[in-house]
Amino acid sequence: MTESDLPLTDFHPYRWGDPAHRTTLPAAAQETLAAFGVRTPEKPPVELDRLPLPEPAVDLAALAEAVGAEHVTATPAARLAHTRGWSTPDLLRLRAGDASDAPDAVAYPGSHEEVVALLECCERLGYAVVPYSGGTSVVGGLAPERAGFAGVVALDLKRLDAVLAVDEVSRTATLQAGLRGVEAERLLRERGLTLGHFPQSYEGASIGGYAAARSAGQSSAGYGRFDEMVVGLVLATPRGTLTTGSAPKSAAGPDLRQLVLGSEGTLGVITSVTVRVRPVPAERVYEAWRFDTFEEGAAALRRLVQDGPLPTVLRLSDEAETSVNLADPAAMFGGGPGGCLAVTGYEGTAAEVAARRAGAGEVLAAAGGQPMGTEPGEAWRTGRYRAPYLRDPLLDAGVLIETLETVTFWSNLPALRAAVTAALTDALGAQGTPPLVLCHISHVYETGASLYFTVACAQTEDPLGQWQAAKSAANAAIRATGAAITHHHGVGTDHRETYAQEVGPLAIEALRAVKRVLDPAGILNPGVLLARDESGR
Amino acid sequence: MTESDLPLTDFHPYRWGDPAHRTTLPAAAQETLAAFGVRTPEKPPVELDRLPLPEPAVDLAALAEAVGAEHVTATPAARLAHTRGWSTPDLLRLRAGDASDAPDAVAYPGSHEEVVALLECCERLGYAVVPYSGGTSVVGGLAPERAGFAGVVALDLKRLDAVLAVDEVSRTATLQAGLRGVEAERLLRERGLTLGHFPQSYEGASIGGYAAARSAGQSSAGYGRFDEMVVGLVLATPRGTLTTGSAPKSAAGPDLRQLVLGSEGTLGVITSVTVRVRPVPAERVYEAWRFDTFEEGAAALRRLVQDGPLPTVLRLSDEAETSVNLADPAAMFGGGPGGCLAVTGYEGTAAEVAARRAGAGEVLAAAGGQPMGTEPGEAWRTGRYRAPYLRDPLLDAGVLIETLETVTFWSNLPALRAAVTAALTDALGAQGTPPLVLCHISHVYETGASLYFTVACAQTEDPLGQWQAAKSAANAAIRATGAAITHHHGVGTDHRETYAQEVGPLAIEALRAVKRVLDPAGILNPGVLLARDESGR
Repeated sequence: MTESDLPLTDFHPYRWGDPAHRTTLPAAAQETLAAFGVRTPEKPPVELDRLPLPEPAVDLAALAEAVGAEHVTATPAARLAHTRGWSTPDLLRLRAGDASDAPDAVAYPGSHEEVVALLECCERLGYAVVPYSGGTSVVGGLAPERAGFAGVVALDLKRLDAVLAVDEVSRTATLQAGLRGVEAERLLRERGLTLGHFPQSYEGASIGGYAAARSAGQSSAGYGRFDEMVVGLVLATPRGTLTTGSAPKSAAGPDLRQLVLGSEGTLGVITSVTVRVRPVPAERVYEAWRFDTFEEGAAALRRLVQDGPLPTVLRLSDEAETSVNLADPAAMFGGGPGGCLAVTGYEGTAAEVAARRAGAGEVLAAAGGQPMGTEPGEAWRTGRYRAPYLRDPLLDAGVLIETLETVTFWSNLPALRAAVTAALTDALGAQGTPPLVLCHISHVYETGASLYFTVACAQTEDPLGQWQAAKSAANAAIRATGAAITHHHGVGTDHRETYAQEVGPLAIEALRAVKRVLDPAGILNPGVLLARDESGR
Repeated sequence: MTESDLPLTDFHPYRWGDPAHRTTLPAAAQETLAAFGVRTPEKPPVELDRLPLPEPAVDLAALAEAVGAEHVTATPAARLAHTRGWSTPDLLRLRAGDASDAPDAVAYPGSHEEVVALLECCERLGYAVVPYSGGTSVVGGLAPERAGFAGVVALDLKRLDAVLAVDEVSRTATLQAGLRGVEAERLLRERGLTLGHFPQSYEGASIGGYAAARSAGQSSAGYGRFDEMVVGLVLATPRGTLTTGSAPKSAAGPDLRQLVLGSEGTLGVITSVTVRVRPVPAERVYEAWRFDTFEEGAAALRRLVQDGPLPTVLRLSDEAETSVNLADPAAMFGGGPGGCLAVTGYEGTAAEVAARRAGAGEVLAAAGGQPMGTEPGEAWRTGRYRAPYLRDPLLDAGVLIETLETVTFWSNLPALRAAVTAALTDALGAQGTPPLVLCHISHVYETGASLYFTVACAQTEDPLGQWQAAKSAANAAIRATGAAITHHHGVGTDHRETYAQEVGPLAIEALRAVKRVLDPAGILNPGVLLARDESGR
């Protein structure tokens, strides 16, 4: 099998993102890595066409009754393309030849009704279902437990890719769940509108995944998190349809939208989402500021988000991250201004951008910030989707590299940062591979902020086990400080146990009760978000 | 019994609000009413000391074990003071001598642990529990069904009235649920902070009720709805404690805060709430604008909330409401500028208020608004809690008067307003009592707005039945237009059936499943929010 045999996905199953943007490490970077004790692994990744796939165990004809024969497939290419997501462990497993999470088949329903029919069919036949929109999970959200099921079907929403309605008076758009974020922006822009949602997974993720996993984009300070944009959702379940969102806000009972948001495909399959949209901004200005210390920079960000004026984009890298310019390997560790770099972005009308930028600039300067101009800000804006492409050549070169994130209240932020950094440093140091730990504030709120960590070290012989030990230590540190186990990556399977500790047994029992109502046989993403109960649901 | 026998409540059980602010109708207003065919009812309201109360049917000694003997009472005064809420039907029932919803006893737990103990005790003894914080429900939220229970206990949270913690860095405060809104503001202001939450029920309502019923204050444009301020909640249930809110925002599963918010005491008793707080504004300016038509004014409000700058307070009265100055009966229907009056309020630093006010003023003027200056704005701000006090003398005088509210997307607002107005006009006209229907936009969002209706007409012989017919017609009209049955009053018992139609049977089943986990015996507010199931839960 070659990559051209992968017609049903745009992406390579064990490399990040769009193959057109693949990159390599420059020779200088390779020398630096060697100086850090990084050695190219003896065993290269297993080639895709050598990955062992078990015989598909599902009745394709039965699935075809729900969605049409031309929309069901069990080719190895399609199954591999729907195997797991974009996390480093996901990639390491495939590189090591483990395709055991591959679905038996992939089905592509073409309407909400076909999704319901497919779920009823899978329930009847005892198949687990993995809802699949962009496939960009980095927390094991696409690796359900198959024990007890007759088969596993990936339910790919890509055919549900329409803009169903735009209400220009109310500034809402109803988007089908399989619509890619990039395409949603393109279609909305034809009408002068934007979602303003630009997560790191932007090139791959789609609307349904944004909602199911509570995505947060890099412009969340200005446009809000995705869950804040959602005014309505339609959910297909094995029991039928649940429609939420009669009004923008209401006092009519618990907010059921917020029960579906974050449910990660375990309560049903989101088939469409109605979101708040905004006019495409007339002006965009991104710039950078330098702070001597992370504490000083964090105080400045807090000041802006609590007292205004608030930029559209606001982030702050710590000293280590500032010194490593991941987007430009040739410049890694090279000179630069030192200190901590903050990026501020402003979008809106020209007058509004000018006023907000001037006001925020005064606050940042008063807080000790030194203006670095628009060049590094624009460099960040235009290069922001490129950094993750470095992971593939770094893994090839023998570097273990992964990211994780969390969120807490402002007063707890220093303790959280110290605890996670120490946990990662200790856990990897104990394995003989002391890491580089980079951190930035990625999203800000009046009451708190998220921390995003990038960790890199030399791979051991068992990079998967190596990372799992580090990740466990980080999870424990997050829990010990009382922070949330995830700010925008989601729970999946990787965070499931820590999540259960965080919310407590009564909450888990309540969510399981909801699942039993909507998915009585427990076929939806079994083991994702919630551990399965005694009966296997 | 006299009013001085009501030591456990600050409020008269069948009159609105603080007895110190009671008012009367001026002679001129009485003449106007007579001209509208309003006649003083032949039967005056039943005196409080003549209200028949059944013998209390609960074991006070058992309740005393949970909360202490001095914190349990079954005096008629206490029971009456905890009978129903502040809606017109609630008042009409008591006026007619119907105290059948009185609890058998009132218990005042002094800690979260005592709340849990009391719930366990009531579950064991088969008593229904009515969580009671401010007692200001206007939707029958305090009138649970008692069939099948050995007794009914009002669980009054007034002893839980402390500020547990203030985090000035994160700008959060942890407030106990029984803390009155007024007192919360006073305590926060000692530290230079404010919640900024000022609902019409401000004088009576408390923190737990704000959360349980998704309150929205009159400054919601600037400070947000109460459910948007909440970052954490602690819930006492018969099964123990559920704690939510590890972080300001997270992607860790469904947002459980949003499951507790709006649960109206049916899933547990909220004992404390952690909320976002803000600095007390240095400056406050309120002013008014006149628009020729409601459509023109609504377009102006939409422009401000969609494109900014956004005032802290933003509301628009229709022609009828503008012509009736409820706060000043002497001026009712009197002259005035005609058209539709909008109130805009600005709070913040002096510079920020000046900039926002100037910017919004430009938008309002461009949209056809004529500035009316600060006098009517300040009059609204200082008099806003007085208008509801007129209901009591109006009821005494033979006027049926009540309010209701709903919310929808901007594009649906004209249809909603027309449908509800027609439903009320037709339903009351058919009873020979054509009503005056006043309407204002009370809360605005980017994607929609709420409509608040005040309805007045002459009472028939059966004002309760008269209103129920009108309310049913309004509920049906709201549902038919697809709007939400409530924007900030809540569901209670009055909206329960329409709510069930709005969210659909799967959602109701899911909520019931959650209730069965947290409240297996169904003792919490039975029949509020959710109809009881076959087993009476």
